[in-house]
Amino acid sequence: MEFIDFSALRAVQTLKGLARKPYSLAQQKALTAKRIHRYRGHSCGFDLLYATQRVDETTMEGLQNLAAEAELVDKFKAMKSGAVLNTISGHESENRQVLHTACRDIFSTEPLAPGATAQAKEQLGKLQSFLNDLQNGTITNSAGQHFTTIIQVGIGGSDLGPRALYYALRRYALPGRKALFIANVDPDDAAAVLGGVDLTRTLVVVVSKSGSTLETLTNEELVRQRFVAAGLEPSRHFLAVTGAGSPMDDPAKYLASFYLYDYIGGRYSVTSMVGGVLLGFVLGYDVFLDVLRGANAMDEAAEEQSLVKNLPLLMALLGIWNHNFLGYATLAVLPYSQALIRFPAHLQQCDMESNGKSITRHGNPVQWLTGPVVWGEPGTNGQHAFYQLLHQGTEIVPIEFIGFRQSQYREDSRLQGTTSQQKLVANMLAQSLALAQGKDHRNPNRKFAGNRPNSVLIGEQLTPYAMGALLALYENKIAFQGFCWNINSFDQEGVQLGKRMATQILAGLKGSARSSLDISSDNAPETSLLSVAGMK
Amino acid sequence: MEFIDFSALRAVQTLKGLARKPYSLAQQKALTAKRIHRYRGHSCGFDLLYATQRVDETTMEGLQNLAAEAELVDKFKAMKSGAVLNTISGHESENRQVLHTACRDIFSTEPLAPGATAQAKEQLGKLQSFLNDLQNGTITNSAGQHFTTIIQVGIGGSDLGPRALYYALRRYALPGRKALFIANVDPDDAAAVLGGVDLTRTLVVVVSKSGSTLETLTNEELVRQRFVAAGLEPSRHFLAVTGAGSPMDDPAKYLASFYLYDYIGGRYSVTSMVGGVLLGFVLGYDVFLDVLRGANAMDEAAEEQSLVKNLPLLMALLGIWNHNFLGYATLAVLPYSQALIRFPAHLQQCDMESNGKSITRHGNPVQWLTGPVVWGEPGTNGQHAFYQLLHQGTEIVPIEFIGFRQSQYREDSRLQGTTSQQKLVANMLAQSLALAQGKDHRNPNRKFAGNRPNSVLIGEQLTPYAMGALLALYENKIAFQGFCWNINSFDQEGVQLGKRMATQILAGLKGSARSSLDISSDNAPETSLLSVAGMK
Repeated sequence: MEFIDFSALRAVQTLKGLARKPYSLAQQKALTAKRIHRYRGHSCGFDLLYATQRVDETTMEGLQNLAAEAELVDKFKAMKSGAVLNTISGHESENRQVLHTACRDIFSTEPLAPGATAQAKEQLGKLQSFLNDLQNGTITNSAGQHFTTIIQVGIGGSDLGPRALYYALRRYALPGRKALFIANVDPDDAAAVLGGVDLTRTLVVVVSKSGSTLETLTNEELVRQRFVAAGLEPSRHFLAVTGAGSPMDDPAKYLASFYLYDYIGGRYSVTSMVGGVLLGFVLGYDVFLDVLRGANAMDEAAEEQSLVKNLPLLMALLGIWNHNFLGYATLAVLPYSQALIRFPAHLQQCDMESNGKSITRHGNPVQWLTGPVVWGEPGTNGQHAFYQLLHQGTEIVPIEFIGFRQSQYREDSRLQGTTSQQKLVANMLAQSLALAQGKDHRNPNRKFAGNRPNSVLIGEQLTPYAMGALLALYENKIAFQGFCWNINSFDQEGVQLGKRMATQILAGLKGSARSSLDISSDNAPETSLLSVAGMK
Repeated sequence: MEFIDFSALRAVQTLKGLARKPYSLAQQKALTAKRIHRYRGHSCGFDLLYATQRVDETTMEGLQNLAAEAELVDKFKAMKSGAVLNTISGHESENRQVLHTACRDIFSTEPLAPGATAQAKEQLGKLQSFLNDLQNGTITNSAGQHFTTIIQVGIGGSDLGPRALYYALRRYALPGRKALFIANVDPDDAAAVLGGVDLTRTLVVVVSKSGSTLETLTNEELVRQRFVAAGLEPSRHFLAVTGAGSPMDDPAKYLASFYLYDYIGGRYSVTSMVGGVLLGFVLGYDVFLDVLRGANAMDEAAEEQSLVKNLPLLMALLGIWNHNFLGYATLAVLPYSQALIRFPAHLQQCDMESNGKSITRHGNPVQWLTGPVVWGEPGTNGQHAFYQLLHQGTEIVPIEFIGFRQSQYREDSRLQGTTSQQKLVANMLAQSLALAQGKDHRNPNRKFAGNRPNSVLIGEQLTPYAMGALLALYENKIAFQGFCWNINSFDQEGVQLGKRMATQILAGLKGSARSSLDISSDNAPETSLLSVAGMK
């Protein structure tokens, strides 16, 4: 296994040549029945329709060669098997394995990383037993009542993924159970959430791998004070999810504690206890296992060499084609499913924190583009918002549509001969076509240039299994792209500088009153900025 | 008043020259106390700190000249006075006035557009009287009870703005009153929202200017069926906000009807009855008036010629500097205020639907960039998510931070010597500095190149007045940019093609069963796509 710079790959040179004249989707007969039928991939119940990408057979061959030359699947298998891939050679770095896949490699008798999978199973066992105790009344509040609500206190990876999956799957919630989230250090976040909550029947799960996340500790303290003020004993309500040995690893303070390990990055932690405690409480243990089952299946699909059988790899390479070769700066992920409302925000983190890098695995500055800006909102809502720019703007935005043939609730109504679900999917397919083909018109303002590349990912229904598969699809896509760009997708040194400067600024604020600015002095920028911001 | 192409403006040529060597924020002593003090603008209680933009005195002079040469303020005044600015000369177009400002120009005895303001006042009077009737029990449900909940059924402009303002201001809600929203044609959206609602005490406000929006009519029908199934008479619960004479303008079907007019675009309609009915119900009429007061004040600030007194103009020009001259494709709006959680989504619509255009006001293809991709999430959450890319990625993202010195709830806790609110603002300022200055390090992975342009917009507290001002700040910023790019920011022809194709696809779906794909036939792409999507 070799780590080669993106620009040094032969396939990259070939693709650069092909990108000079990419397939035109706006030409006559560009989208034949044959093409639409042929340009399809499939994994774990999802189809990817990519006839509406600016690729032809030669491009796809080039991308398949790129995957082979960069040994993407081998690197993925190495990751799953516990290789130390969170590292920058020759420099101080985290130097860790990357084993979130082990959290769901629990269904096989021969998992690729047996040690990590054993640890995952141990935590799952603890969770199952805890949830059983809640169910059968062994654990209750001090008045002997069942808990109905769980509040997750966490931020970033401890918030976005679990929140996205909760919204996606709350249709499957156990009767009477719900979740709330406090993430922001903004005190108004906690205040708004705690406003309408019956604390007596509430569990609070505090999630921080390091056990030292400023926002999370601040919010934990704030929520603890609320419990104390209400005459409740926090240790009967608070749960911890943290790294073994962290400052939060103090079972005396918590009703129950669950662990995660240094080989699980925050943004890849949804399928660990970070998501497990909340999702297990709300959906039930077995439904959470279904999520893991779906994720595991997609992890297996990601070991396929053939692009059309490996959707994570296929989507990774189509993304690289659009970003590095066609030069588009952003990627829009547009789910036609209201339940996926927070999924783009999760992906935004997972993708941009992983691949927003500019140093290779060897510590050299990259000479090529790495991760794009990822953004998105559910359709059809977006059609009445930013789609104007997608169709007629000067920025070209590649798009990944996501949709399902069936709704979750199956509560639908028929109007003008079709159901709402049919309208939803029809709109998604129509956008895909309209963006690709465009349309001429004598009125220049009604002209559509077309050639807006996009693909449609479609599944049967957003079940827990499908959600797990979808999550792992994107996690693995991101890993493949990172391998291809020869960067470390698993650290996040870029968040450190802002943290350090915030600490300095806070030191300047402690106990201070507002005073006027002295512009004659040689103030540090922090001091001047605090003054002009009216904070000091 | 002349409409000149962006590329033909003398100031644009000057700025192009300056952009070859923009001010370096990463150089030694780039951010002196003097600079930080000097690079400030102020309007309506908000300060803009822009020392962390890549501009110097010459750049700012160039931008001020650009504003003058393109007559931006004159065009804005003309807009407020009722000029027909929603038009493309020589081609069929909407040909309308643009008078959302008239909705709040109600406090002066000499409004600039007296006719439109009189209509706004008439609707406000109707709203006030309706809200009074609810308050004093003249209007109740059939059991004589007060209404507690309002559901807004609308999409796009009838959803995003009212939703953003509701989340921003719900801290000021009248006791016991709340709002919910149904937008997506996805039947799961309505199902999830209606799940926990007591319909007997619920008002439903259906909002569609045209009275023919597919999603909204579908959802209205679905919600009406629920009321009927619950034995409730919809006409005692449903309100309409629509254009006079639209298919929805049928007072017999509604408890009350409110109008908006063709000179108010959907994405600019929050301060009309589109936002007024919901916000008036939840917050009370007087609080809604405070929102209008703030917006009106910012509309007046937007008439100032001097950049530092006109924040909408200043932010418009800094945006153009970053986008057109420095070449950055996107803009991140990052509020350090959890209450503003949906504000970036509203701006995304307002900005991208307005300025995602490629035809000039004269109907010629633009030869310069128009609107950027706009996206964002609240800080400090984002710091634990996508900020990695902002600091160290290969895509440079200009940023507009938004923050407030005081929290809304004033429920705060002190940890390690500072309050949560202080931590929040300190983090925002730290990010602004860190992104601008960067930092060298011997470990290449801990190096920060800096020169990430950003500005900080800071106000005292997110009150209803401040929210109104903030809303109008962005609305007017967007209008200024559109004038500068010489495009029509007020139409949305780009959404039509997708709608038409969806109608065609739906026609193909009516009453159809799934069948296998015949790839030998010369199917239209719609038909093939339906087949491979498994929908037919």
